Amino acid sequence: MAGTDRGRGPGEEQLGPAPAVILARPQLGENVGAAARAMLNFGLTELRLVSPQCGWPNAKAVAAASGATEVLNRMRVFEGAAEATADLHHLFATTARPRELHKPVVTPEEAAREARALVAGGRRVGLLFGAERTGLTNDELVLADALVTVPANPAFASLNLAQAVLLVAAAWFKAGDAATPPRRETDTRPPATKGELRGLLDHLVAELDAVDFFRARDRRASMTRQLQTMFERAGLTEPDVRLLRGVVKDLARGGRKGRGAPR
Amino acid sequence: MAGTDRGRGPGEEQLGPAPAVILARPQLGENVGAAARAMLNFGLTELRLVSPQCGWPNAKAVAAASGATEVLNRMRVFEGAAEATADLHHLFATTARPRELHKPVVTPEEAAREARALVAGGRRVGLLFGAERTGLTNDELVLADALVTVPANPAFASLNLAQAVLLVAAAWFKAGDAATPPRRETDTRPPATKGELRGLLDHLVAELDAVDFFRARDRRASMTRQLQTMFERAGLTEPDVRLLRGVVKDLARGGRKGRGAPR
Repeated sequence: MAGTDRGRGPGEEQLGPAPAVILARPQLGENVGAAARAMLNFGLTELRLVSPQCGWPNAKAVAAASGATEVLNRMRVFEGAAEATADLHHLFATTARPRELHKPVVTPEEAAREARALVAGGRRVGLLFGAERTGLTNDELVLADALVTVPANPAFASLNLAQAVLLVAAAWFKAGDAATPPRRETDTRPPATKGELRGLLDHLVAELDAVDFFRARDRRASMTRQLQTMFERAGLTEPDVRLLRGVVKDLARGGRKGRGAPR
Repeated sequence: MAGTDRGRGPGEEQLGPAPAVILARPQLGENVGAAARAMLNFGLTELRLVSPQCGWPNAKAVAAASGATEVLNRMRVFEGAAEATADLHHLFATTARPRELHKPVVTPEEAAREARALVAGGRRVGLLFGAERTGLTNDELVLADALVTVPANPAFASLNLAQAVLLVAAAWFKAGDAATPPRRETDTRPPATKGELRGLLDHLVAELDAVDFFRARDRRASMTRQLQTMFERAGLTEPDVRLLRGVVKDLARGGRKGRGAPR
């Protein structure tokens, strides 16, 4: 999907403080890059890797980041999850199957709301994700204050790593957007008045009468009402009505002159 | 993230009817596969491709699907977006930058709620996504009833194709979690399909061509789009389309025979 405004810098200065994303033992560079891209899509810029299995630096990660190089450039690598989270106040760990760890289990939206409140209060927050195949170990999960689980198809719940990052990051962005009402483009062309709609209907019905379209009086009444209902609920604009009147006029007149006749 | 319960079948029997996902001219097999996986994660199983640029069948797609082979096996390939959506009643098109198309613009969550209500009412719904680099063409966007835009970092808004599919699919799944009140249908007549609307448009344009209505080629393109947009948003039913086709036919033919001529 195209749509980036390259003129604006995506840095933290503009987006404000935000959680760090910590990937534990990622196996594929593509996923690290795709996670970086997803992070920047939703205003997260601080990425930390815990002993990456994919090797680092990684060309596939750079390719998959699709321009989110700022995130990769700032990225830091740590040996263990404890080291990678040592400076944080609050840690959310994303897992498909919350085990019996006596931790609160929340949705991405709930985590995002809580993270917004914590960050607003000056806390440093982290979002921890496990390795592609194995997820998070119990030693990693125990570091978390809460577990995040994405509601998904129970028969096929295994999310790609970068897509799990995306869903949590998108929830973070949305939680900050909550005050803003959803954008809705409205048609800026002036709507047709009732009189203009009536004029269109009368014009059409007169031309249909001229070709004996309705045949019977009761059909004329019901079909006219059906046409009127259509026009009323179509949300027609002034230009729409003008175009339709031209269509009716030319179809009827052009037709009368015979196909292909000069006009 | 591990966590799939392979014991349960993910088929539509269990998940219920759901929207089709249509990918227009995808360039990378990986993205088709990743989209299939994301779909199945959130209960969508019907995938359609419009002239895939990545070649098909595609080994990279199979690898990236990570076991969502059921979705790839059911997948169908079409030549154009119109063919791929002809049997649908309602189409959402996802785009990063809604252009001036006079269509409602909604978030994934709003689209998901609306799609749930439509599907509950027996309508066939589609979710259309454009090519990685170029997005959707105006000819594709005009088919849509509404545009879906993901709120994202304005400085880096370009989402990966599979990730756009993921966000819309996740919203669909989530909308099913909340109890959706069944939509009250005010019109019990069956809605027209995209194919029926297309047939009406083609018929009208052919008759207008016969009377040289458009005069110039550029007027023909813009006016045809204006008519198409009108038909798409008018909420036409099957009987409406039948009536309008009769109107077009009799106006053009009756006109040709001369006013008042016997029929």
